[in-house]
Amino acid sequence: MKKPILHKRLGQTLNLDSKKMQHTISVLMNNRFGVLSRVSGLFSSRGFNIESLNVAESSDPKVSRMTIVTRGDKAKIEQITKQLNKLIDVIKVVDLTEESFVDRELLLIKMNAEARVREEILRIVDLFRAKVVDVSPSTYTIEITGDEGKLTGFLDMLSPLGIQEIVRSGRIAISRGNKSIN
Amino acid sequence: MKKPILHKRLGQTLNLDSKKMQHTISVLMNNRFGVLSRVSGLFSSRGFNIESLNVAESSDPKVSRMTIVTRGDKAKIEQITKQLNKLIDVIKVVDLTEESFVDRELLLIKMNAEARVREEILRIVDLFRAKVVDVSPSTYTIEITGDEGKLTGFLDMLSPLGIQEIVRSGRIAISRGNKSIN
Repeated sequence: MKKPILHKRLGQTLNLDSKKMQHTISVLMNNRFGVLSRVSGLFSSRGFNIESLNVAESSDPKVSRMTIVTRGDKAKIEQITKQLNKLIDVIKVVDLTEESFVDRELLLIKMNAEARVREEILRIVDLFRAKVVDVSPSTYTIEITGDEGKLTGFLDMLSPLGIQEIVRSGRIAISRGNKSIN
Repeated sequence: MKKPILHKRLGQTLNLDSKKMQHTISVLMNNRFGVLSRVSGLFSSRGFNIESLNVAESSDPKVSRMTIVTRGDKAKIEQITKQLNKLIDVIKVVDLTEESFVDRELLLIKMNAEARVREEILRIVDLFRAKVVDVSPSTYTIEITGDEGKLTGFLDMLSPLGIQEIVRSGRIAISRGNKSIN
């Protein structure tokens, strides 16, 4: 029974065409003007599409931490991580795809909540352990956190009921076990 | 008893010095090479520090949605949102600070989990409805979602116990009620 879902998740995560595998890259950088545009400029000038990117303070307020999800063959990804390492204010670059990691993403979703779909929306919210965080007479706003497989499953269930708006945080990721990027 | 926490939250969210208020800006843009570096370049060239930024697919795969948290006086923020609107591939810019919105952030935190602190860590995780998502003999990795006040409170409790690594998604935000940015 679970096969289609598993297949879907594998398809998305590994992209079956292994040459263009999805990579999750962590970058530590000094919290200075311009470093973000230099990093994103490097990706766009090399023709890499960024699937998601996020950046915020790390445990040290002078250092920001970025997580980038992109797609490319191994050699090209190695090349770009080397070039990232050379940029001013970049402290460390780690391609987490090389190791075992935990990844999560956060979504806020505004649903059309006409009377006839409300019960079904709440049933799905419950099954996925999501949470309704705002309600209006015609909408429900839902918060959910999970890995790519869970979130895809959730959106697949909600889509036919009328999604009005989605905001995604993009993936964040951390190595498994006691390894640390710092 | 709750006063210090409330005061802290207000201080962070409104920055009491109202001239440099924190702003949460949503940007819809075509999912094309270079638009991310143009947007971040605009902020850095105008001397705005970005406190957090994230970008990922919206409900339309051809359109990306970005959430930026920055700080500035009202006139300067109005100026930069106007300039953002003029950039190629930028579809829409909304300063959510002007209206009522729900905001959330996702964190992954790796804690040193020596025997003497384990019980206390798990107690805090429980109180904040956080979740342990990975365990090694010497570390716990914790997932938590919340608004700025909740996350600051959580980190304040964990700090003395030994944080090894943090990854933050940066804030994502959506208008309250049935309003939609699309």
